[in-house]
Parts: sequence; C-alpha cells; structure tokens
Amino acid sequence: MKFYDCATAPSPRRVRMFIAEKNLDVPVVEVDLGSREQHGDAFASLNPHRTVPVLELADGTVLTSSHAICRYLEEVHPRPALMGSNPQERGRIADLDWRIEQEGFLAVGESFRNRAKSFKNNAVPGKHEHAQIPELVDRGRSRASQFMQWLDTQLDDQTFVAGEQFSVADITAFTAIEFAKWIKLEAPAEYVNLHRWYSAVSARDSARL
Amino acid sequence: MKFYDCATAPSPRRVRMFIAEKNLDVPVVEVDLGSREQHGDAFASLNPHRTVPVLELADGTVLTSSHAICRYLEEVHPRPALMGSNPQERGRIADLDWRIEQEGFLAVGESFRNRAKSFKNNAVPGKHEHAQIPELVDRGRSRASQFMQWLDTQLDDQTFVAGEQFSVADITAFTAIEFAKWIKLEAPAEYVNLHRWYSAVSARDSARL
Repeated sequence: MKFYDCATAPSPRRVRMFIAEKNLDVPVVEVDLGSREQHGDAFASLNPHRTVPVLELADGTVLTSSHAICRYLEEVHPRPALMGSNPQERGRIADLDWRIEQEGFLAVGESFRNRAKSFKNNAVPGKHEHAQIPELVDRGRSRASQFMQWLDTQLDDQTFVAGEQFSVADITAFTAIEFAKWIKLEAPAEYVNLHRWYSAVSARDSARL
Repeated sequence: MKFYDCATAPSPRRVRMFIAEKNLDVPVVEVDLGSREQHGDAFASLNPHRTVPVLELADGTVLTSSHAICRYLEEVHPRPALMGSNPQERGRIADLDWRIEQEGFLAVGESFRNRAKSFKNNAVPGKHEHAQIPELVDRGRSRASQFMQWLDTQLDDQTFVAGEQFSVADITAFTAIEFAKWIKLEAPAEYVNLHRWYSAVSARDSARL
C-alpha cells in the first residue's frame, strides 16, 4: 500500500488525519503540486484525474478520492471505528460526512480555486481546464459561512460532530475549517461550540501532522 | 422506516432504484416540490436542509442524502451487494460512486439549477438562497460532457461501471445520464459503450420506477 500525499494540500490532509487516528503506518509518496507533478506522465498514468490524495493497494487498485480511501481503510482496519459501529451510526456519520464535504470543504475550495492566480484555468479539480468564475469567490465564501453556522448548532449539545465519539465527520469538518483560513474566513467568536470543538480537535496528535 | 420521495426529482430516483434493486418494500411519503412543500414547517422540521430524498428510521434517525441512505440500506440489507463484497471492491465502488456524483450528477444539476426559472434564487440545493450564476450553465454542461466521455471509456471492456457486477455506481451514473436530458445533453452516438450500457440498465425493472 502506498499513499500519495501532498503536505500542503487540504484534501490529502483529511486522509493523513484518518491514517493517524487509526495508528497506521502507510508508506508515503510526496507529490509536488507546486511544480505540477500531478500533470506529469508518471503521476497521470497512476491517476488519470491528476488529483491527490491517491491510495495504491498491493493488488494495483488505485483509489482517487479521500472519501473512498477512508472507506477502504475503515474496512481493513475497523478499530478504532471512525465511521460508526452499527448501521444507524454508519448511516448518520455517512450523512454528516457527505454534507460537510459538500457544504463546507468543497464550498471553501470553490471560493479559493476561483480566485487564486495559480488556478486560473483549473477552477475545477481534475485534468480538464475550466476558467475561473469570479462570482463563485463570494458564493463559495457565503456557503462556507453558512456551513460554520450549521456546524456550531450541530455541536450545541454534543462533544463531536456525530455525537460523543470522534469520527471521520470531525476530520472533514476540521480540515474544512482549517482550509477556510486560505480564504481568510474564520468562525465568529460567538460560535462558542465550534471554537470549543476546534480547540479539542486541534489538540489531538492527528491534527499535528 | 419511511422514505420521503418525489416522483419527478432526480436525487430521490437514485434511492428508488437502489430500493428496487434490493427488492425492499419501504413505505413512501410523496413530497410535492412543485408546491414547495419542502419549505413548509412540517417537512422543514423533519429535514432542516429542506431537500429530498429523506429516510426516517424507526428510532427517529433522519438521513438526508442519497449517499447515506444507500449506505444504511446496504448495511441492513446486504444482499444483493450493491457496494461491493470485499474491502477492495467496497473502496473501488465508493471511489467510482463519489466521482460519478461529483462530476456527473452534480455537474448536470449545476447547469440545470443555474438556468431554470423556478430555481432563480435557489441555485444551490438547500434552505439558503443563492442567486443563479449564468456562467455555470455552460460550465456544468461542459463538465457533464466530459463525464460522459470518461464513462464511455470506463465501460470499454466491462459490462458495468465497476466491472461485471451491477452496483450503486451504475445507479448514480444512469440517473445522471437521465438527468442530463433536462439540460438537453445526450451522449454522442459514437459513445457505443455508454449506449450499450444505458440500454442494458434501462431494461432493468428498477429503471421503470
């Protein structure tokens, strides 16, 4: 098994945290997005979508999304459970994780990618060129703000995003909140639940990688 | 268990096909999106995100995404397996399903919602108002075309999207191709693999619901 990572990118960070929470030792290949290594022949033949993270399995299977990589690792290393311990929990955590990715993580990415000079013709992740759309800078930011408000409410009467147990939904939410700093968006001080949770997750060993 | 459905909407259709492929009998509550029933107090108190599909479990758990509803149903009714029968398959099918949703299904939705008059201030699914961005009509369409090209290649040497077994990835892809008719986008005739697969899936009982 090999994990294709990029230390500075938000998506692989989700998987890094997941691997750390599982206490796994997975060999890492660092991909240099700064020099556009993902568009080079070697990486593009591994992952034609030219995105990180990637998990390459021993049998040659290549997984190209944070979601599926975490899902696979949960299957082969079920403890500690990060995706729930019974069908209801698994459904509920999958639901939260999906929403947090769509409305939090990807909303921040939409704002960032449609503004940053280095993504001028790569406003959508992947191999196809798409021009930036300036209106998405504000729309993504506004959606990310709405996500933060929802997250604060979600954490009103519980320790973690899905309840009293830390889960993959905390990882996706935490990396989304960190990613939001790239668009200079921080949760308002009155979101006390969110800030309490953010401090607690920041203190975990997995958040320091 | 109750399934909140809307016979004319593309997202609940994914879940309807999944339920039919599992041969399950789940009580259905029809939600009238045409009269904006999802914004009424009764539905909004069930699902504050005001979207369909919703699956309400006997214990009161409410799942609000097609992804999580299918995940839960797979847990409680594992046969026939629609998400893979071993960790590698589960990872690979999760990976394909994620990509097909992002690059196919949601790309079509992006094009449609940013144009249709009835979505003028609801260009993003959910309870928050977001104005339409006209540039997304073409960008979504272009992304959906790229998705169709990828799908045709994916089906080059195999019967279904993830191999020889029908899976949830076929359901998401099939409903995305059907949804694309809403934006008058059809796969070019030369995508022979895609057309062969589309005919085969269309002939399944689950596709007639």
